[in-house]
Order: sequence, then structure tokens, then C-alpha cells
Amino acid sequence: MDNHNELPERRARVVRLLEEERISAFLVTALPNIRYLSGFTGSNAALLITPDRALLFTDPRYQTQAPQESDCAVKIAKGPLTKELSKWMPRLRVKSLGFEGNRIGFDVHEQLNAAKGVRLKPAYGVVERFRMVKSPAEIAAIQAAVQLNSQALAQALRHLEPNATELDLAAEIEYRMRRLGADGPAFETIVAAGERTALPHAHPTQRRIRNDQLLLVDMGATLAGYASDMTRTYAVGKLSTKLRRMYRAVLESQLAAIDAVKPGFSCARVDQAARDVLRGYGMDKLFIHSTGHGLGLEIHESPRLGRRERTKLEPGMAITIEPGVYEEGVGGVRIEDTVVVTANGCAILTPTPKELIAL
Amino acid sequence: MDNHNELPERRARVVRLLEEERISAFLVTALPNIRYLSGFTGSNAALLITPDRALLFTDPRYQTQAPQESDCAVKIAKGPLTKELSKWMPRLRVKSLGFEGNRIGFDVHEQLNAAKGVRLKPAYGVVERFRMVKSPAEIAAIQAAVQLNSQALAQALRHLEPNATELDLAAEIEYRMRRLGADGPAFETIVAAGERTALPHAHPTQRRIRNDQLLLVDMGATLAGYASDMTRTYAVGKLSTKLRRMYRAVLESQLAAIDAVKPGFSCARVDQAARDVLRGYGMDKLFIHSTGHGLGLEIHESPRLGRRERTKLEPGMAITIEPGVYEEGVGGVRIEDTVVVTANGCAILTPTPKELIAL
Repeated sequence: MDNHNELPERRARVVRLLEEERISAFLVTALPNIRYLSGFTGSNAALLITPDRALLFTDPRYQTQAPQESDCAVKIAKGPLTKELSKWMPRLRVKSLGFEGNRIGFDVHEQLNAAKGVRLKPAYGVVERFRMVKSPAEIAAIQAAVQLNSQALAQALRHLEPNATELDLAAEIEYRMRRLGADGPAFETIVAAGERTALPHAHPTQRRIRNDQLLLVDMGATLAGYASDMTRTYAVGKLSTKLRRMYRAVLESQLAAIDAVKPGFSCARVDQAARDVLRGYGMDKLFIHSTGHGLGLEIHESPRLGRRERTKLEPGMAITIEPGVYEEGVGGVRIEDTVVVTANGCAILTPTPKELIAL
Repeated sequence: MDNHNELPERRARVVRLLEEERISAFLVTALPNIRYLSGFTGSNAALLITPDRALLFTDPRYQTQAPQESDCAVKIAKGPLTKELSKWMPRLRVKSLGFEGNRIGFDVHEQLNAAKGVRLKPAYGVVERFRMVKSPAEIAAIQAAVQLNSQALAQALRHLEPNATELDLAAEIEYRMRRLGADGPAFETIVAAGERTALPHAHPTQRRIRNDQLLLVDMGATLAGYASDMTRTYAVGKLSTKLRRMYRAVLESQLAAIDAVKPGFSCARVDQAARDVLRGYGMDKLFIHSTGHGLGLEIHESPRLGRRERTKLEPGMAITIEPGVYEEGVGGVRIEDTVVVTANGCAILTPTPKELIAL
């Protein structure tokens, strides 16, 4: 499922970090980071990396699956993983241990702290930084997930029945994803009709999709572990001048942001490009989230395309571009594509059209 | 969606704890605990409870939704929630702050620690303990989710086509859940055929469901926030004597465990009852997980029905009973129901039959 031949090189980057930071081992506790470095997809694991070994700790439920998926030495823990881990640290002569400060529980840290003779050193976002730039195989995996996602939306809209509810459409979308081979939705599918589109994270309800209203769909499929993410806003029948102007503003804003995606440009600059257009429409105050985010093994990854994010874009980064405006009691519009940073600009992966379409 | 009238009483239990522990406030960071105490269902929040106030912190995406869902005072933070929280602590004269030691990140704890004049005190599983015993309204919500789940399985099996793959059946199951009104699956639906049933947490694959093999389905639907969980193992065509004996052993084990569910009995005793039966069949070593777990707003809640779990069962606890045996290269059988502890024993909520059925 994962690209096994990339695993040793990925772990080698962690080993180089051990040398730079002069620590004897690194403990990976975030599951997507564990998958990235070991290939293991289970729900309970810890990965210990030393200069010459990689030990994958998990529980008996995964005793068959773990060695199938991972090229690391698998250690099955019958009790808590930290207990088994604490046994191995003296055996491997671990004197100082780097750990994922932003991906470890307070309690797990306390348990590790209780182990004698090991100095703990927090690190923040190390593996996440490695993961920001995708390999060609990873980009192909994201592209496949994006294409599946667009296909699922097209199929679901063809099957949209009169009087369908938000929940009906969400069910149809997720069914189509699955039938097309997805692992499942990458997040709870958002389907919002009418003034409910003003809620950026609306759970779908029994509300019927009626004429002369907005319909917003935000959906993502996970395929072979990699996520996709797309938002489209439709006109069901005819829209008011106000709503059509809202749509035009967001589309223009989204195109301007995509235009600003170039290697060497900062994430904040892309965010600013989206905001500048909306300011021209007097709608910048209605844009209440950031312009986008990285995606890959997780639906939200680094970098974040926010006002203060100084990270520079690099070829191979996969990011979403998704400005939106929301007015309570009126409605909201969001348009979101997934793009990959290239040598000169970016490639838009999402094939679904984004001019205003009336269903 | 939640039972709003129960919220103040739930928070009052936290306030009583503040008095007992002599701390001035409690910080809730686990999202299901926040939902339980405040009604809010969003994906980013923190809840601060003092003897006379309850403040719900979230971000601008939820500025409309949060006050609709929650009876707490909503504070919208434009940056990190901990930053906004740190502003409020001196205003509310918080001198000592309890926090969820098992549900808070190491980094969030570090940020709170940096706030001056506040003594931090970890607490473990406090709200989780409150949540173990369900109110009648919560039991009704779980029962509705369980019934929907069973209905979805029945519908999906009626639509099972010859030559279908594991993924096809998983897709059909999740589609039926959604059409029946579920929020979505409570976890990734497990469909495993043939010797893949020996993997307790198999992801469904493109493998076809063939004759004369086992078929295992482990599925749960979330409805109005509450989870359900059920496993059934079927015979597709005819099974070998060995596999039929395996089924008989697991069914007998499951019934024995259900028989041991009585108020005042320990969780370990229920687990032991399941293991004793399997030992009689020489299969106890093939049972590699615990016998069950609580469920409610989360799919895995306290108590855990494991060997060393001394928690005593109480009326109102909702738990799964799910022994299983797994033999690599041969196959696995698991049978799982959701039950509620009553005054005298337990009520089985799951209506799906569990004698060995040939599809």
C-alpha cells in the first residue's frame, strides 16, 4: 500500500537529525508519522528510531498485520506500549530521547519521564516538516485520491433526486467514494443548503435541497492512505444578485491565490492574495478562516496558508486553496481545489469545473 | 441534538469536584467530554468550568454554531485557544486549575504552565468516569444507534451481489447507515472474508467474498452523536468442521460473558467468563484482545472489560461483549453485541440474530 522502498530513506533523515541534535534515539508517537516512516497503518503504535535500528511497538491485535506492512522490527506489547518501550531503552543504550512535543500526550510524557537514565528532549513538527514535500509517488497517490473524489461528486450529482436532503446527498457521495475504491471519506462530508452554507463546518441534516438557494459540498476521499479535499458551491435554480456577487468574489479570490502559488513565495503571500480580492468586494471580514492547508497522509498538514505563516512554498508541496465568505442568515460560498507546487508555479489537480453551475 | 436540560447537572458534578479537590477551575480539552458538558460538537474547543461560570472557547469557524449548540458562554479565539484561555484565567481569579492529564497534549500543558500564578493539577479520567453511567436519554440514543446499525446490516446483506468484494459490502453498509439517518460510521467498517478474518482489524480490500468461507463484519453507526458497535461472522456456503467448532466456541463464550454482566460484578469477571469457555475448547490463546468496552459519545469508553479491570458494573453502563478467536492462515470468528447493565443483569440492545447463518 505504501511505498516501501521509500521507508529506509525517510528514516535516514530522522537518523541524520539524531546526529545533528546529538541524541541517541527518536520516538515517533503520531500515527500518520509512524505510517510515513514504517508503513504500519494500525491504530496503536510507537516507533523508536536509533542510528542503526527501527523498532515498531504495537499490541497483539496487529501481530499478523504489522510485519506484513512494515519493514521495521515489530515488538508486540501485551500491556501499555510505554512499558515495553521502557524495557527496550536500556537494551539499546538510549541516553537521550527526542520525542514529538506536539503529538504526544501529557500522560505518555510523564510515563517516559519516569524511566531512569534517559534525558527527554521535545521536538516540534520534525516529521511533519519532512512530510511537507511529497515524493513523486506520493503526489501520484494524492492525484489518484483527488480524481476519485471528483468522480464521486459527479456520480452523486447525477443521482441527486428532487426533494433530496443534505444527508441523502452526503450518503450518496460517500457511497460513490467507497464504490470507486476509497478507504473512506477523509473527513465528515459537508453538505449545506440555503442559509446553512453560512456555517463553514455544517453537519448535513434532514433539510431538503430546495430551489433558488445555494448548495455547498465540501468532501474528501482517502485512497491508499492519502487524502483529497474539494469544495464546490452550486446554485440550485436561480440565485439573488447578492449571492451571485458573493460567488464571483470568491472565485476571483481563489484564482488570485492559485496565481500566487510559486516556489519561494510565502504561504502568507498566497493568503494575502485571496484576502486582497475579497477586500475589493468589501467582503474580507466575511472570510473567517485561512486560505488553505497541506494534505497527504492527513487531511490537514503543514504548511497552513494563514496570515502569519512564513513557510516558503517548495516544489512537491500539495496544498488546498479554499477562500470562502460567510454571512449569517444569508449564506456562504467556498471554492476549494488541491494544487501541487511545481518548479514554476503550480498544477491544479482538481478536475471538477468551478464556474457557477445551476443544478 | 444533545439533551440540553442535562448539561447544567453534568457540569454541577464537575463543580462538586472542584470543591472536593480545592481547586478553582477545571479545564476540559477532550472533545467528547466538551460535548458531554457543553453540547458543542465542533472540532476545536476548550471548556473552562469554575464554580459559577462555564466558558466555551472555540475559533471563528464556529461563531454561529457554538451559541446554537451550547448553553455556555462562548468565547471566540482568533489565535490559539490557550492564548485566549490565559487571558481569562486572571479575570476569573483562577489560582489552581485541574486539567485532563490523559486528554491533553504535552505542548498544550507546556503553554498553560507558562501562565503565571496558576497551579496546574492533573486529573485522570474524571469526566470519562461521569460518562460511564448513562442517563435514560443517553441509553435511548445508544439504542437508536444500535437499531439503525442492525437495520443497515440487514439491508446491505439483502443487496449483497454474487462476486461482491469486501469493499463493496463495506460501501453498501455505510451507505445504508447514512440513508437511515446516521451521522456516519463510528469507525472504519471491517469486512473480512476467508482467512483474512484472522486479522482482528482488517481494512476491507478488493478481495471477493467467495463460497465456503467465513465472512466477518464489524460495524458501528453514530446517530445524533452516540455510537453503536456490532460484529457478526457468517458462513458463506459451507464451513469446515474446524471453523464451525470455532464459531460454537465463540458463541458459547459470548453468551457466558453476557450472563456475567450484573451490577456489582467486576469487568474482569465478565472477561474471565468469556476466557473460561474458550479454555474449555483449547482456544484461550487465540483470544488476543479484551472482552469488550464501554461506548457512548465515543466508540471506546470506560470501562474496559479486560483481565485486570476491577471497575464494578453499575446499572446504566452501556458496554460491548465481543470475544473472538483468530488463527493465522485459517480464519477468525468474533461475535459482538451491545448491552446495558440493568438492576438485575443486562439488556441486550442488539437485535441481529447470532446463530451461525449461511449466506
